Amino acid sequence: MTTVFSGRSSLCPGPPGPVGPVLPVLGEGVRVPLAAGGEVEYAALDYAASAPALRSVWADVAEFAPLYASVHRGAGHLSQRATDLFERGRAEVAAFLGCRAADRVVFTRSTTDSLNLLATALPAGTRVFVFETEHHAALLPWRRHQVTFLAAPRSPGAAVRTAGEALASAPAGVPKLLCVTGASNVTGELWPVRELAAVAHRHGARVVLDAAQLVPHRPVDIAALGVDWVAFSGHKLYAPFGTGVLAGRADWLDEAEPYLAGGGATRVVARGTAGGVEVEWARGAARHEAGSPNVIGVRAVASACGALAGAGYEALAEHEERLLGVLREGLAAVPAVRELSLFGPDAPRVAVLSFTVAGWDGAAFARALSERYGIGVRAGLFCAQPLARLLLGETAGVGGGGGGNAGAEGCGGPSQAVRVSFGAGTPEEHVRRLVRAVRELAG
Amino acid sequence: MTTVFSGRSSLCPGPPGPVGPVLPVLGEGVRVPLAAGGEVEYAALDYAASAPALRSVWADVAEFAPLYASVHRGAGHLSQRATDLFERGRAEVAAFLGCRAADRVVFTRSTTDSLNLLATALPAGTRVFVFETEHHAALLPWRRHQVTFLAAPRSPGAAVRTAGEALASAPAGVPKLLCVTGASNVTGELWPVRELAAVAHRHGARVVLDAAQLVPHRPVDIAALGVDWVAFSGHKLYAPFGTGVLAGRADWLDEAEPYLAGGGATRVVARGTAGGVEVEWARGAARHEAGSPNVIGVRAVASACGALAGAGYEALAEHEERLLGVLREGLAAVPAVRELSLFGPDAPRVAVLSFTVAGWDGAAFARALSERYGIGVRAGLFCAQPLARLLLGETAGVGGGGGGNAGAEGCGGPSQAVRVSFGAGTPEEHVRRLVRAVRELAG
Repeated sequence: MTTVFSGRSSLCPGPPGPVGPVLPVLGEGVRVPLAAGGEVEYAALDYAASAPALRSVWADVAEFAPLYASVHRGAGHLSQRATDLFERGRAEVAAFLGCRAADRVVFTRSTTDSLNLLATALPAGTRVFVFETEHHAALLPWRRHQVTFLAAPRSPGAAVRTAGEALASAPAGVPKLLCVTGASNVTGELWPVRELAAVAHRHGARVVLDAAQLVPHRPVDIAALGVDWVAFSGHKLYAPFGTGVLAGRADWLDEAEPYLAGGGATRVVARGTAGGVEVEWARGAARHEAGSPNVIGVRAVASACGALAGAGYEALAEHEERLLGVLREGLAAVPAVRELSLFGPDAPRVAVLSFTVAGWDGAAFARALSERYGIGVRAGLFCAQPLARLLLGETAGVGGGGGGNAGAEGCGGPSQAVRVSFGAGTPEEHVRRLVRAVRELAG
Repeated sequence: MTTVFSGRSSLCPGPPGPVGPVLPVLGEGVRVPLAAGGEVEYAALDYAASAPALRSVWADVAEFAPLYASVHRGAGHLSQRATDLFERGRAEVAAFLGCRAADRVVFTRSTTDSLNLLATALPAGTRVFVFETEHHAALLPWRRHQVTFLAAPRSPGAAVRTAGEALASAPAGVPKLLCVTGASNVTGELWPVRELAAVAHRHGARVVLDAAQLVPHRPVDIAALGVDWVAFSGHKLYAPFGTGVLAGRADWLDEAEPYLAGGGATRVVARGTAGGVEVEWARGAARHEAGSPNVIGVRAVASACGALAGAGYEALAEHEERLLGVLREGLAAVPAVRELSLFGPDAPRVAVLSFTVAGWDGAAFARALSERYGIGVRAGLFCAQPLARLLLGETAGVGGGGGGNAGAEGCGGPSQAVRVSFGAGTPEEHVRRLVRAVRELAG
């Protein structure tokens, strides 16, 4: 199993005409109004923010919904079935990620939540190493630990060297964690996960992989990659029902304070001899899953994992590479367009691509794509402000100065770049329409 | 608006025959197998653990699902619509709860999550007061604060006195929080929320209401009750899609560290002058909602709020009171059955009732109800172990001694009591079947 597919399918012989999606998604054929009148089929090209549900995921959710019942807590027939389904979902996710026998699979709400959970589970004194190029969800959860922010590398090899040097200079004998992304949510570029894991382990550090942008596009095998934990979101994996995953090594998770305090995370709660309340916490995944779990969300994630494994990542990657070829060739022909890249134009990437258009504010350009062409993309700094600003050639600081620091709530700020992203449900027509639109708007 | 409906409808003139549900739910007519062969319509009587989705909630989710798109982050037409829907959902929940203009509505995953969030937002030095009778979700999140566990009161009046005395003896000038439940998840008994809020405020304390078991049965008006915050779960409110709510006063929430660190909770993230990363956090609800929100879950919660408001709590309470009358009269005729109660048999309660059966282990009894009658209830200590043990007359301690401390993961432990709970989707036949089953098994 590999995480890098190189080559662009536009260089390979492919089917002659436009192709449809690899896996059907909800929302196909939804029509939206255009500013000039009339309507058009919506082209959802913002998968990197959140992907539509697979039709098969929706079918599984719809089949389960009437059978929904409390899990882990009820004695009734449907509660037993729901509990079986819930725990089977856990096993299916574990198999999908190639988890080792002793690994935990904890259900969270999102990648952000997964990484925040792990941050609370780090042993006291853990040194955290993270590239400043990461998504905020990977950059910021370590706020209660000593964090070393690694300078943006300009090649995968430089990333490995930078991480190695930083880890080598860290004191021995303290716990260390390297947080790495699988694929950038800004550039789509693939990071050398296996090599980073190897160098981290050589220096006694553990590794958590932010797979939010990787797992929708490439297989993620926790054992084959040699990482200690993997985090991802259902809503980027065609299962937008509020569930994410943290999977990996059990020891720190089992020894940590429970992430949430409440029912389900306890074994015994009793009045103490001195009048207080004493608690014996659960071990295993339950320790960090207090409260009734989102069983529909778990069902959806497990269903999506099964569907992707069934379709095969090779077919998915081939589809995306083909569309990426169409996109990049098309954009390359528009002089005003500049593609954002950290590792250079030939670096392997997933179906995520950001660019600027000379003379256009990114937000205005994205709005024009929506209003005139029915195309949905994202504009902004993509919740990875240090990376986005670096690639835009900007500087900015907190509390004033720099460009556009009045950033609105959300992942906003100055809206200079436009991001296009797609996946299993994207027909070639959507990408061709985008290329045509960019040419017309910026040409 | 009131939170207490007294009187039992069995004492009132009602319709002569069995009645159907007030609001239709998914799962009606689902048939389950019996151990002796054949099958029967499932009687879901475990609403207090998790309630089935309203059909109208499901319809709203199904209508929205094909239009699903990233919220707050996308420029496309569907992203704009999803964002509008998401924020409208927030406004609908605020209206449903009678929020004051400056109140925040933060979307979480559950009541447990909401109370854990509030626990992280308390100012340093806050003294927390909580009755030892609470659900673990209300009992345990305050672990990083100084907590006073209040002894179980045997009447609503005693609860107010106990809280008042404890608050009076707390030092002045430090922040104080009283956490109270609206209705017990073990006995269903209603707590004197308004009176507790009044006494708390008299002593300079704030109040958070755990409305998980109240809001499915009675109107909760944050301003009318005079509480500072309300927490509840969608999955107990006929919207089991992974979303909960914390609503209430803004100041502590706005001043607190963000609950989760990540995208959406930031305004500006920038490389610091010394090479690190500096963050300016968002204010408002976004501060505590990092990561892509569960917009389907929010849609479901808002839809459920609308449906309950539309049907009217009076109709719902009347329906439940009638069924509660059938249940309690039926159980009263079985000598082996003992109803669990903190405040006595005449205390007003919602449609939640726990009991023991002489000669039966609760888990075995619940299993028999499922296997022989197709009835789903819950057995155990209901994630409120101190209260359940008190009412069962048991003692137990952490780490050995007492009964059943080998409790399994989840809200287990010794399974002495059986809980029956129901709501808007319950037809009278389910409750009559339960009464007949108890009579046959225990008579």
